[in-house]
Amino acid sequence: MSTTTADDVRELALRAREASHDLALATRTAKDAALRAMADALEAQVVPVLAANAEDVAEAERLGTPANVVDRLRLTEERVAGMAQGLRDVAGLPDPVGEVVRSSTLANGLELRQVRVPFGVVGMVYEGRPNVTADAAGLCLKSGNAVLLRGSSSAARSNEAVVAVLREAVASAGLPADALLLVPADTRDTVKALMRARGLVDVLIPRGGAGLIRSVVEESTVPVIETGVGNCHVYVDAAADPEQALAVLLNAKTQRTSVCNAAESLLVHASLTETWLPSAVAALQAAGVTVHGDPVVARLDGVVPATDEDHATEYLSMDISVAVVDDLAAAVDHIRRFSSGHTEAILTRDQAAARRFVAAVDSAAVVVNASTRFTDGGEFGFGAEIGISTQKLHARGPMGLPEMTTTKYVVTGDGHVR
Amino acid sequence: MSTTTADDVRELALRAREASHDLALATRTAKDAALRAMADALEAQVVPVLAANAEDVAEAERLGTPANVVDRLRLTEERVAGMAQGLRDVAGLPDPVGEVVRSSTLANGLELRQVRVPFGVVGMVYEGRPNVTADAAGLCLKSGNAVLLRGSSSAARSNEAVVAVLREAVASAGLPADALLLVPADTRDTVKALMRARGLVDVLIPRGGAGLIRSVVEESTVPVIETGVGNCHVYVDAAADPEQALAVLLNAKTQRTSVCNAAESLLVHASLTETWLPSAVAALQAAGVTVHGDPVVARLDGVVPATDEDHATEYLSMDISVAVVDDLAAAVDHIRRFSSGHTEAILTRDQAAARRFVAAVDSAAVVVNASTRFTDGGEFGFGAEIGISTQKLHARGPMGLPEMTTTKYVVTGDGHVR
Repeated sequence: MSTTTADDVRELALRAREASHDLALATRTAKDAALRAMADALEAQVVPVLAANAEDVAEAERLGTPANVVDRLRLTEERVAGMAQGLRDVAGLPDPVGEVVRSSTLANGLELRQVRVPFGVVGMVYEGRPNVTADAAGLCLKSGNAVLLRGSSSAARSNEAVVAVLREAVASAGLPADALLLVPADTRDTVKALMRARGLVDVLIPRGGAGLIRSVVEESTVPVIETGVGNCHVYVDAAADPEQALAVLLNAKTQRTSVCNAAESLLVHASLTETWLPSAVAALQAAGVTVHGDPVVARLDGVVPATDEDHATEYLSMDISVAVVDDLAAAVDHIRRFSSGHTEAILTRDQAAARRFVAAVDSAAVVVNASTRFTDGGEFGFGAEIGISTQKLHARGPMGLPEMTTTKYVVTGDGHVR
Repeated sequence: MSTTTADDVRELALRAREASHDLALATRTAKDAALRAMADALEAQVVPVLAANAEDVAEAERLGTPANVVDRLRLTEERVAGMAQGLRDVAGLPDPVGEVVRSSTLANGLELRQVRVPFGVVGMVYEGRPNVTADAAGLCLKSGNAVLLRGSSSAARSNEAVVAVLREAVASAGLPADALLLVPADTRDTVKALMRARGLVDVLIPRGGAGLIRSVVEESTVPVIETGVGNCHVYVDAAADPEQALAVLLNAKTQRTSVCNAAESLLVHASLTETWLPSAVAALQAAGVTVHGDPVVARLDGVVPATDEDHATEYLSMDISVAVVDDLAAAVDHIRRFSSGHTEAILTRDQAAARRFVAAVDSAAVVVNASTRFTDGGEFGFGAEIGISTQKLHARGPMGLPEMTTTKYVVTGDGHVR
């Protein structure tokens, strides 16, 4: 089999573009029927899907892939059922397309409406998690977008199987099968071709590690929505409730470590150095967390000295960097220097301090007296999430279905001229 | 004087970043006072501003610059007064910062608010129109953004004079002078440095010709909002009111030709080939328009044969390309192939046709029975306009003050954990 070329990818993008014209006009009824057909088909075809996945898993194990990566790659009957349920959940969400964002009658009588419409063609670039294939396909279809799915080569067989099932289901429901297309992962050049398909692909969404996202952001001429890296901070203010602060910190750090909204850095007001700090460090350590501390913190038992690198790191593990700050302004400065702009929390009973923190910290989410773990489309009530944007253009924070659309202005007159 | 280096530009960006922290917290009262101080200062300092501009104009004339370009470069007492009035108008507009876009109480009692906040640092890259310097400075300041202004080298002295006046006024009103900074135009490398200042500059907005915009879009690692190129179409449907269609067409083409929302292409339903089309072509020609027609149209007197290049061109002059199409679907296909996605209009009394056109045409603005010339921030009632976005991410169509912001989520709890 010959290697996929840039021309092959452009050919796929042209097919997606063609399909996007029909999809943009599809009714909610038609799209929801397709989503339910996709869910039913995944469950009906679970045997071939799992068989294809087993080959990917066997290959990954043969290559000595780390166990946690293999775990993400692995599908089970239960996980496939979860993918199907995800598609049914998306069918239950409101259709963002056609929503009127603003509407007015101008002074001259012209009627102005700003209406949500699909982007057109979305490119998704992601790593070895075959469930993302179904999730992204569902969210894109519901928002009226055709999608080019470029998963990891490690999941190639799984993705081929899933996409084949989903495409057939979409066609059976009367929508174009080319609403979703798999971009072969046999060469990294297919990602490059996607990144250069300006005019054919309307937006690229990379989902995965920092390296993947950085390379897409830097090389793409197609507009990119950056997602996900979270070096999230918890700042414990002088006026924090000590017990509440500890409970929130432990939740933010340990409830689930591999996610972007987990806390990675703790900032503690200097007035708490002799009181709350030692107990918090001990509690973290008792929970199995390795504490990387600045010179003040490092005097405590079992604390590893922290470097700037530690303060900048998204560990995604049972590690945390800890620094003592002189005041709220110093906490804000530290966050400005090291944060990835995802989520930062303040713990305080001081309303003025909370207000200053919220105003000064420029991140996708700023949290007062709650865990960083709440920055999530599901928790925010969006029903589904394509990713969490850590950039400022278009969408910031958890992206639901409305964030998968653009708008157009519709101007209606009766022969109006200037 | 040594050439400006990339490091010099980064230094300016760092100063803008520092200023942006204060600006983000500035109240509307403070910002409006600064805008009025800027307006007063421009009028008070009109003599040195005009003197600097006269040097730019003399240099441009010495270099044989075309008269229309020199005209855009030229400032007069009246134009400076217009710039001042523009700043006062912006002071009168609502402050987008702090607007709550959505707000809810989650099932667990967490309070969620999505609030408008400034981008931070905006980079403007534009051509030789010194009035853009004051316009952009005003819109950025009002939206709480620091701005790096990179104008044309042809306007260097004018921009230096304007920026010096505005910076002093901003400082006199108690806001940081570094809210606006001029990036020297002595070398094209300063644009490159801006385009590579990812992390220091939050968004780049190129304003100017197609070449400038394309180069920024393709080379920038900083997110870009693309503005302005408009190859706008007028489609005259079989069911158009003939007189109304003619009046709208003439307005769209001839009322002002040098603007992005002027019509550049006319599509005529085949049923009108022997009736409306000849009279429309004659009326265009009588108004001084050169008609570039497809083979059917080119049979008429005085019509120049049109190439694909003509159909794709934004003339910005008294020229129009004209094609006959078999039906509405063919008009949509033609628009998909040639449009720049700015504004397309349909003239029809047939409600179903209007509906189909609006649904199928994917442009920033779709107009029914009115001139394309209405796609404009002022006409839409936005009060001011930083440009017209022809892309799909973040903002599409005329961009007012709200489009110069991003949002953040503010989550407030009482010790909430997951």
